[in-house]
Amino acid sequence: MHVGTSQVLSNKLKEEIWSHKDEVDTIIGYILEGDGHHGSYKRLARITDGFGHRVSGSEALEDSIDFVMAEMEAEGFTNVHGEDFQMPNWQRGEDSCELIEPRRVKMPLLASGSSISTPLGGITAEVVVVRSFDELADLDRSETEGKIVVYNQPYEGYGTSTAYRGHGATKASEKGAVAALVRSITQFSVNSPHTGQQYYQEGVEDIPTGCITVEDAEMLWRMQESGQSMVIHLDMTSLTDGMMTTRNLVGDLEGTSFPDEYVVVGGHLDSWDVGTGAMDDGGGCAISWEAMVIIKKLGLTPKRTLRTVLWSAEEQGLLGGVAYYEQNQDLVPNVSIMMESDSGTFRPLGIGFSGSDEARAIMREILDMTSALNATQLGSEGSSPDTGDWVRAGVPGGNLINQNDDYFIFHHSEGDRMTVQDADEMDLCTALWTSVAYVVADLDELLPREDNSRK
Amino acid sequence: MHVGTSQVLSNKLKEEIWSHKDEVDTIIGYILEGDGHHGSYKRLARITDGFGHRVSGSEALEDSIDFVMAEMEAEGFTNVHGEDFQMPNWQRGEDSCELIEPRRVKMPLLASGSSISTPLGGITAEVVVVRSFDELADLDRSETEGKIVVYNQPYEGYGTSTAYRGHGATKASEKGAVAALVRSITQFSVNSPHTGQQYYQEGVEDIPTGCITVEDAEMLWRMQESGQSMVIHLDMTSLTDGMMTTRNLVGDLEGTSFPDEYVVVGGHLDSWDVGTGAMDDGGGCAISWEAMVIIKKLGLTPKRTLRTVLWSAEEQGLLGGVAYYEQNQDLVPNVSIMMESDSGTFRPLGIGFSGSDEARAIMREILDMTSALNATQLGSEGSSPDTGDWVRAGVPGGNLINQNDDYFIFHHSEGDRMTVQDADEMDLCTALWTSVAYVVADLDELLPREDNSRK
Repeated sequence: MHVGTSQVLSNKLKEEIWSHKDEVDTIIGYILEGDGHHGSYKRLARITDGFGHRVSGSEALEDSIDFVMAEMEAEGFTNVHGEDFQMPNWQRGEDSCELIEPRRVKMPLLASGSSISTPLGGITAEVVVVRSFDELADLDRSETEGKIVVYNQPYEGYGTSTAYRGHGATKASEKGAVAALVRSITQFSVNSPHTGQQYYQEGVEDIPTGCITVEDAEMLWRMQESGQSMVIHLDMTSLTDGMMTTRNLVGDLEGTSFPDEYVVVGGHLDSWDVGTGAMDDGGGCAISWEAMVIIKKLGLTPKRTLRTVLWSAEEQGLLGGVAYYEQNQDLVPNVSIMMESDSGTFRPLGIGFSGSDEARAIMREILDMTSALNATQLGSEGSSPDTGDWVRAGVPGGNLINQNDDYFIFHHSEGDRMTVQDADEMDLCTALWTSVAYVVADLDELLPREDNSRK
Repeated sequence: MHVGTSQVLSNKLKEEIWSHKDEVDTIIGYILEGDGHHGSYKRLARITDGFGHRVSGSEALEDSIDFVMAEMEAEGFTNVHGEDFQMPNWQRGEDSCELIEPRRVKMPLLASGSSISTPLGGITAEVVVVRSFDELADLDRSETEGKIVVYNQPYEGYGTSTAYRGHGATKASEKGAVAALVRSITQFSVNSPHTGQQYYQEGVEDIPTGCITVEDAEMLWRMQESGQSMVIHLDMTSLTDGMMTTRNLVGDLEGTSFPDEYVVVGGHLDSWDVGTGAMDDGGGCAISWEAMVIIKKLGLTPKRTLRTVLWSAEEQGLLGGVAYYEQNQDLVPNVSIMMESDSGTFRPLGIGFSGSDEARAIMREILDMTSALNATQLGSEGSSPDTGDWVRAGVPGGNLINQNDDYFIFHHSEGDRMTVQDADEMDLCTALWTSVAYVVADLDELLPREDNSRK
């Protein structure tokens, strides 16, 4: 047992946790060596091979939601339903980007989510390349006005570099630019463009924006450095056409003692419209859904309700997560833990956790109990894109720490395919995810919070 | 000095080799810390950024040959000229591949070099997926006749796996298939198709063929495994339109004592028509050309002629290499060493060498003399695609051993761009390449051959 946190817990509680050791071993054995072998991988393949990408607003997303709901019904889960919400109806058009001078080069382009289109016939403009917002700020307005600003920012981690996609258009527009092209946010490229959401700012003129490849951004930078002037023709028809409706998906395995208390596991079923969203976030959906299936198949009967939520419209700015919270926040006192996996399902390393010291000590015990999986890290942050509101409201949060060094090579690109996923690694993720969810759902008490409040 | 080979050499010869230590140090210093810093990288960028890909038959290749020749003339090299040869005029058309059943998926396709087109309107046919030639052989003809054969062979190294692209169409045609699609030959993919040459066989009907991505090949395999039947629509207009002329490029730095003896360094300037051929084989061209420039700039005056050959049409089956040998084989007795770099210019590890024991001992001494570069491996094979005929004729051959583990991630794909290249690593390659070429060119004798023959 873990020194340093174990004294927080009473012996009685520790005994209660460890009384689940047999069930946990059963879960792990079922997945690694039993009928559950490669179950989450196969489940994910049915979604990705069957429906392809599932961008919000697409028929494929709605079809895949219907598919999962029908499966969940057939699997005997209860309360299976969708929860509608509204979102902007942004549609990717036919977008193209061509270097005209000094040499004609067709450059792969992915418009950034929410980008406006170019005027009919496109934009032909000179190019100025910068490597940072600071470099842009240092330019005289005459050097940017009427031009296409290209950001060739180095990759300094997703959290940092993503600001260029998110706000590059606004910053360029403030300097009078007519469009902004952003180097794809990745550490490794095979000339692969990566997309993602961008955010206009009120009071600043909207200009079209999208991502080009690392290779092209670097080429434009070299051309500028060698004194060549560049002209790009940009033609984009992507646009936002009013609002539309999509759904979060909910399905329950009802608790035997506290049916109105919840352990929520999930991921977001929507993806970007490139690749098939196997990694982002099909994997998180698959291990969550599979967790519920396994617990039911093994005849385990957790005391409180195990709920799978598959959020939608995460990619457009966590819209599904926000909607689910708004529509269900009366459950804040009733949710023992909100677990979302949305940073890959590579080899699991542990669980990120947000919650009280006592709750953390409980998680520590559970991870010690599942140490056969070699995934015993207990991270200090358990929030996840779609669970942030819940965690901020005091609900304990859990996420999956995994060996996801390659995550951003595939993220939001055509490379987000089943090939990224490893069935054995997914088994380990599923075993960890299922064990943690099951034990927390079966404890006598909700995970304790800072203020010891209980509904 | 190296134990085991040094006794092969006379003390006099060893002294002669090591008498070049100062010049070698000058070369290395000039490149790593002097005016030559990043010279080969910049040279390569001028070619790739200026002309893009340089597939044989393209204006870009001919323009880049003209460009290099004009530069070489301006740099004061002699005998700068092109040497024409004929090759099949294969032209990539508009090729597309779409999965129709069970789900519509546009699959990136690169026709393999020399592939015929599909009949007008394309081919729509059922799909059968195999993982090996053995699996194909085991199928009943009824399972392949009239179908599109998809090879989902695992990557087992380029040398092994490339047989599927090279001969997959022929093997499929022998079983009555109407087309063959081959999983791209790479160990890592971001849904990136890789092209390359394929070879029809006389007496077997030609069928259209090309490469799809690893991701799509694996998806088709999973679909087949899960019992789904698949239909693909393939529309290809690539075709061979008679013969055409292209050129190898030659430029000399004339030797001061033995002008009719040669040390040849080079690479192939042609590339595939994806990416910009920065790695394959712009890097080899750049370090070879740069070697000659550096030796001249430093005022070094090697005894024999240093010749740069930039071959063409390597990608279509070593056609330039074969032509250069046919047109110049009278020089076999006069060439001290034939050095081609065509497996990347990543961090150098040493020199691969084919030749007599005595010549090998000389190379060992030279590599010991350049040990500051940490690239002292002396490999057992010094042949290279365009120098094979020379080496088989008894000419000593050298190539560049380098840390090219990632080579086939980019090879023949849109990812073969300057971003692959590292200017510092290229400096190390250039320093090694230049030092070896210079010392061999300045020795009193040609590198000794097995039979001790000299013209």
